[in-house]
Amino acid sequence: MIPREWVIETARRVYRSYGFSPIDTPALEHLEILTGKGSDETDKQLYRFEDHGGRPVGMRFDLTVPLARFVAQHIQELGTPFKRYQIANVWRGENTQRGRYREFMQCDFDTIGTTSLLADIEMVLVINDLLSALAVGEFTIHINHRGILNGLLDKLGLANQTTAILRTLDKLAKIGKEKVRHELTETVGATEAQTEQLLGLSSLEGSNEQMLANAEQLVAGSEVGERGVSQLRELIDSVLATIPTAANNRLRFEASICRGLDYYTGIVLETTLNDLPEIGSVASGGRYDNLANLYTSQKLPGVGASLGLDRLLAALEELGRLEQTQTTAEVFIPFFDSTRRNDYLQLAAQLRAADIGVEFFPDAKKLGKQLQYANRRGFRIALILGCDEFAARECQVKDLAIGESQTVALADDAQLLIAKIREVLQS
Amino acid sequence: MIPREWVIETARRVYRSYGFSPIDTPALEHLEILTGKGSDETDKQLYRFEDHGGRPVGMRFDLTVPLARFVAQHIQELGTPFKRYQIANVWRGENTQRGRYREFMQCDFDTIGTTSLLADIEMVLVINDLLSALAVGEFTIHINHRGILNGLLDKLGLANQTTAILRTLDKLAKIGKEKVRHELTETVGATEAQTEQLLGLSSLEGSNEQMLANAEQLVAGSEVGERGVSQLRELIDSVLATIPTAANNRLRFEASICRGLDYYTGIVLETTLNDLPEIGSVASGGRYDNLANLYTSQKLPGVGASLGLDRLLAALEELGRLEQTQTTAEVFIPFFDSTRRNDYLQLAAQLRAADIGVEFFPDAKKLGKQLQYANRRGFRIALILGCDEFAARECQVKDLAIGESQTVALADDAQLLIAKIREVLQS
Repeated sequence: MIPREWVIETARRVYRSYGFSPIDTPALEHLEILTGKGSDETDKQLYRFEDHGGRPVGMRFDLTVPLARFVAQHIQELGTPFKRYQIANVWRGENTQRGRYREFMQCDFDTIGTTSLLADIEMVLVINDLLSALAVGEFTIHINHRGILNGLLDKLGLANQTTAILRTLDKLAKIGKEKVRHELTETVGATEAQTEQLLGLSSLEGSNEQMLANAEQLVAGSEVGERGVSQLRELIDSVLATIPTAANNRLRFEASICRGLDYYTGIVLETTLNDLPEIGSVASGGRYDNLANLYTSQKLPGVGASLGLDRLLAALEELGRLEQTQTTAEVFIPFFDSTRRNDYLQLAAQLRAADIGVEFFPDAKKLGKQLQYANRRGFRIALILGCDEFAARECQVKDLAIGESQTVALADDAQLLIAKIREVLQS
Repeated sequence: MIPREWVIETARRVYRSYGFSPIDTPALEHLEILTGKGSDETDKQLYRFEDHGGRPVGMRFDLTVPLARFVAQHIQELGTPFKRYQIANVWRGENTQRGRYREFMQCDFDTIGTTSLLADIEMVLVINDLLSALAVGEFTIHINHRGILNGLLDKLGLANQTTAILRTLDKLAKIGKEKVRHELTETVGATEAQTEQLLGLSSLEGSNEQMLANAEQLVAGSEVGERGVSQLRELIDSVLATIPTAANNRLRFEASICRGLDYYTGIVLETTLNDLPEIGSVASGGRYDNLANLYTSQKLPGVGASLGLDRLLAALEELGRLEQTQTTAEVFIPFFDSTRRNDYLQLAAQLRAADIGVEFFPDAKKLGKQLQYANRRGFRIALILGCDEFAARECQVKDLAIGESQTVALADDAQLLIAKIREVLQS
């Protein structure tokens, strides 16, 4: 829970730094709000029952459906743009595996009510800031625009086959180019020329600029496709102008990214860790034309993404990048002179007032036992204060990481001690 | 949610500053873990159903029962003392009212596995630090020791009537002394002399020292009672030595506080706001001999308390002490020169790197409209940057609270601007 709270804290801080505000929605929604909104799979996995008033209810399975219900209900008071984040648990009665649980946390942020590309740009910047702050090592934001493939399909006269084609192209990484080519011609019924163009778009290579130029040629003449390329180009330009130059290879145009078939309509993105790409996307999202069409006739376009908290924590653990401490306080005070209890308490209060966390052991056990406890929990510093130290008005500051002690004078205001503790914590 | 997150944050910070560590437990527990653990009432209010594996499950109705289950399961690895906090939602299918909901949040902290009075003292210090940090105005921690009344009942030979007597005395504030006197003699069957002693203890007056001395006389000869008085005296002494002198009247011995009939065995406390005592206790807790006797044969004494988050927020709202802002960022940047998008984005990134939250409006609407939005959301500062300002390499810093603007030079590192923004935010 300590690294988990740290990730949540960091997400909150980054979301807030862009003006996203927190909302919360109930764990339980009326059943009719939840059913038929995800896939058949999510309907089947729903935890559902009747409440004490005999109403059918279910536990939310994501934060997007509750957001749509919430926005449809409150958009008049909220006004637009409405920028919200929600960090909360969701429930699915499915089979569990590594990084996949029946109760898990989602960390969503969305901007509702604007079609401005600036909101899309901000989505990428937020993901960049968040993963930078989480020190996950280098990462890659794979970015695409749904208009590009749609434009090509339009141009090829295959628009009515969109779903089947997307489904087939989505298997490219899994089953390879040859099998996809076969499926496109045999099952979907595309001509050989059409198939070549589709495969050409899905397997572009080179720099972002080269790939965008190639994609532009492929969709030339299709308004939707050209707009997709130009929006993507603008977005990449603005993001690269804003993030540090050294981070510029984090952003990669990838024409095969779709993120599901129906929901997204513009920019889509996925994010992988360069040191552990096989764990999958740790932050995904995109732009949609209409968030809440099932609950309101008002058209609510938006753009947003979600941090995959449980997957990210699983990845950080696998990479050995999680701090192993079990304590939330930096300083441990062993207790070995009961007559001095109030002096210990006063000193601890002075350190806390200086924003230094202190745990004071409750029982006057042998010092060795108490230090064993401190080491097991992972405290950084122990303050040794027995009768001798109190008499001499001094204190031993023991750095538990290297096992060395230094003696510091104990003045009334504890300023010298506070300075020494800060010095050790920063070393 | 903004003040709510602030209260949660503050609770986390204070709990952590004493070395309490976070835990989490699932929303759903096996039904047998939850039933028969609270009252008949909580059993009736339980949200329960069968999961996809046909197992009866229920949604947790508090955090103490899950803690007991968790500790019984894991105490061998955890070791003692085990200091944990848990801030999480719980569910009860009951009738809702002000500050009382079907889904609500509990903020518990407990020290498990020690009988040291130091843990009791820390509980009081944590509540003091927490309510001080939350700026709720002055408050009173009403404190008692269950041993005192138990000692008196022992001495009077009424120990086998404990439940009935506690239940009657608990009505003192509601129905008054005369009716309680009547009930004690007529219904419970106490003699007149016994009744006078019971009422004497429950309505002590004067300073803490005077009341403790009177209580000591009433329980004289009862080991349990004398120990209760002496522990309470020690605790009050240590707390008063640690908190600021000006805060010393926050702590008040109140012999009528019981906190339920069976669970607590030592120190018990409730906390009221001096400006709104009628809303009830906003932080309550106490010491118990055995947390998890239903799940393990290991005896696990502990002490802990809970912040009543929803009630506290209701109180702060009623007292007009909640900040009314709807934004999490301090600075608003209106957007009115599309050709400068990357310049706006770079400036916003510089401010965020200096820990200043910035919301950048996504659409190039009229300035008036954008400032209307900023005022409605409650931003403190707007940065006015149009073509003229960009050309002159300067920026107007508009203090939205007082409506005044100042012009600041825009250098590459934005240091002057950052300093000015900080100055306005602190004014």
